Amino acid sequence: MSKIRILSKENIQSVFTLSMALEAVEQAYREKDSCQGEVWPMVFHEFDPGHADLDIKSGNLNSEGVFGLKLVSWFGDNPSRGLPALHGTSLLFDLATGEPKAMLNAGPITDYRTGAAGALGVKYLARKDAKHLLMAGCGALAPYLIAAVLLVRPDLEHIQLVNPHHPAHAEQRLGDITQKVQSLLAPCGAALSVPISASENVEQSVRESDIILTATPSCAPMIDAAWVRPGTHFSCVGSDMAGKQEISSDIFVGAQVFGDDIAQCLSVGECEKPYQEGKLKQLCGEIGGVISGRLTGRRSDGEITIFDSTGIALQDLSSAVTILKAAEQSGIGILADV
Amino acid sequence: MSKIRILSKENIQSVFTLSMALEAVEQAYREKDSCQGEVWPMVFHEFDPGHADLDIKSGNLNSEGVFGLKLVSWFGDNPSRGLPALHGTSLLFDLATGEPKAMLNAGPITDYRTGAAGALGVKYLARKDAKHLLMAGCGALAPYLIAAVLLVRPDLEHIQLVNPHHPAHAEQRLGDITQKVQSLLAPCGAALSVPISASENVEQSVRESDIILTATPSCAPMIDAAWVRPGTHFSCVGSDMAGKQEISSDIFVGAQVFGDDIAQCLSVGECEKPYQEGKLKQLCGEIGGVISGRLTGRRSDGEITIFDSTGIALQDLSSAVTILKAAEQSGIGILADV
Repeated sequence: MSKIRILSKENIQSVFTLSMALEAVEQAYREKDSCQGEVWPMVFHEFDPGHADLDIKSGNLNSEGVFGLKLVSWFGDNPSRGLPALHGTSLLFDLATGEPKAMLNAGPITDYRTGAAGALGVKYLARKDAKHLLMAGCGALAPYLIAAVLLVRPDLEHIQLVNPHHPAHAEQRLGDITQKVQSLLAPCGAALSVPISASENVEQSVRESDIILTATPSCAPMIDAAWVRPGTHFSCVGSDMAGKQEISSDIFVGAQVFGDDIAQCLSVGECEKPYQEGKLKQLCGEIGGVISGRLTGRRSDGEITIFDSTGIALQDLSSAVTILKAAEQSGIGILADV
Repeated sequence: MSKIRILSKENIQSVFTLSMALEAVEQAYREKDSCQGEVWPMVFHEFDPGHADLDIKSGNLNSEGVFGLKLVSWFGDNPSRGLPALHGTSLLFDLATGEPKAMLNAGPITDYRTGAAGALGVKYLARKDAKHLLMAGCGALAPYLIAAVLLVRPDLEHIQLVNPHHPAHAEQRLGDITQKVQSLLAPCGAALSVPISASENVEQSVRESDIILTATPSCAPMIDAAWVRPGTHFSCVGSDMAGKQEISSDIFVGAQVFGDDIAQCLSVGECEKPYQEGKLKQLCGEIGGVISGRLTGRRSDGEITIFDSTGIALQDLSSAVTILKAAEQSGIGILADV
């Protein structure tokens, strides 16, 4: 009889850190580049378009000897019933035998690995002398993105928060987000030494930024190409289904664009619209190629770089393996017969 | 925090019966026919063609307010390492909120629901006066199919066992299969009162049969059209991936053919080859339509009927819900925080 380890949200939060997520996601991207990791076709289902949907992402990660899946559902009416809108569950299996190894609450995994993804775009594509970070979007992911970027770029000088759809919201969320950034940095042995401020003026904030992170559910561009200064880097993590768009398609003209999975970026990512409109001819490649050194990322200080992070199964798998190893060492979670 | 119920193989075997599986699968087929149940795109991945593969089947079942998935992997080399070749895991979620409800070992579910599927083909398509049942294939599924058919057709007079690929195997397996049939019937309040015998002569056995069940991994027809007598019913459950075939395409000419999911039958089921060869123009419909009374199944005592069971997510979901309810009542399994 097999034993499977069940790891709750609290279990995962007690062993997983953003530093571990950065390493896990970097490994996932590298393995995708070397074809050691494979992404299988995604299942996407809308229960009620615009109100409830889900996706199932799956794949295999050869270096760690695992395959697995993550099912994430979004029920927009849940918060009005006192429930989280998102629920996620991951399953991990042994790649040599098919035996189940672990079931994990994928909620925290998604937060950490998405923050790490955006930060890896910054690490490999942003100018070395970047000082000003703009976080567009004040939802649950914002602190994960900010903290992860601070871990890869500790010499930033200023962080600004905007909420393009509800400008006043940035100021309201500033305290909570700052506190969460601190609590995410602490277990990584880092501290927040950079001021974070909120702004209601998206245009002005964009004009002052070197690095822009976007994490909104936007379906229409909220950042205009005319506002963007030369050399800016974008990590866009909000677009993960057809029809979403966060930044103007004009920004893609002449930009160096990388994605996590080219096919997925063109079908459901930030690249979808610019590609359809002919403003993006093709991506330069996948970020894994830049990480492995096979592809050149940024070529000059003056060009715009864009990382389109749509989210791939390998990030989740790699993170889940890291968590499972830590949980096994600490003996946490429930070991159940299956 | 959500609680999820973890149900092991032993847990499931202690509460689930073939009678419950027959009811659950019949309901699943009926819901598919009334569009209350939906099957989402299947993920199929071959790790090593012919040696290791897996599929992920998922969908929603509205009447029970659930959605879910089942991942089943097959690693052909496992038995030589003392491990089962098949591993299966099911997840069940609340259709109103997305909250996880249960994780189940899908191994026993697959056995029970596949046995029930084959038997429902018999229940709705075989002649009322059928007396002779032939089981082609002596693997793990054989006793589930035989026992389930006995539950829907208790007036059968004789059961014969053949193994077309290893003729002598039928005799060797006879004792074990008979014993397993008895142990599957007992919890349903039934007993084995029909003789089961083994034969090495497939042709002669086919010539004597009214109902033929096929459950083999065959990739070439093992039953010839010339052997089949008028009025015979086939329930074919072995073909579940492209390239498999158990019975001659000629048997489909003029037959009344039903499937569990038309698209899946034509792409990976027993219907695939006859359809490609032009010997099957189209299916008469899905078995759910016959169960609901919307479609006519058998029209005369003389015609051949075929049920192509490829296996759909709704069978697993409906079975999992039945098991979960029974487990909740009995208080079995592990309740884990997620």
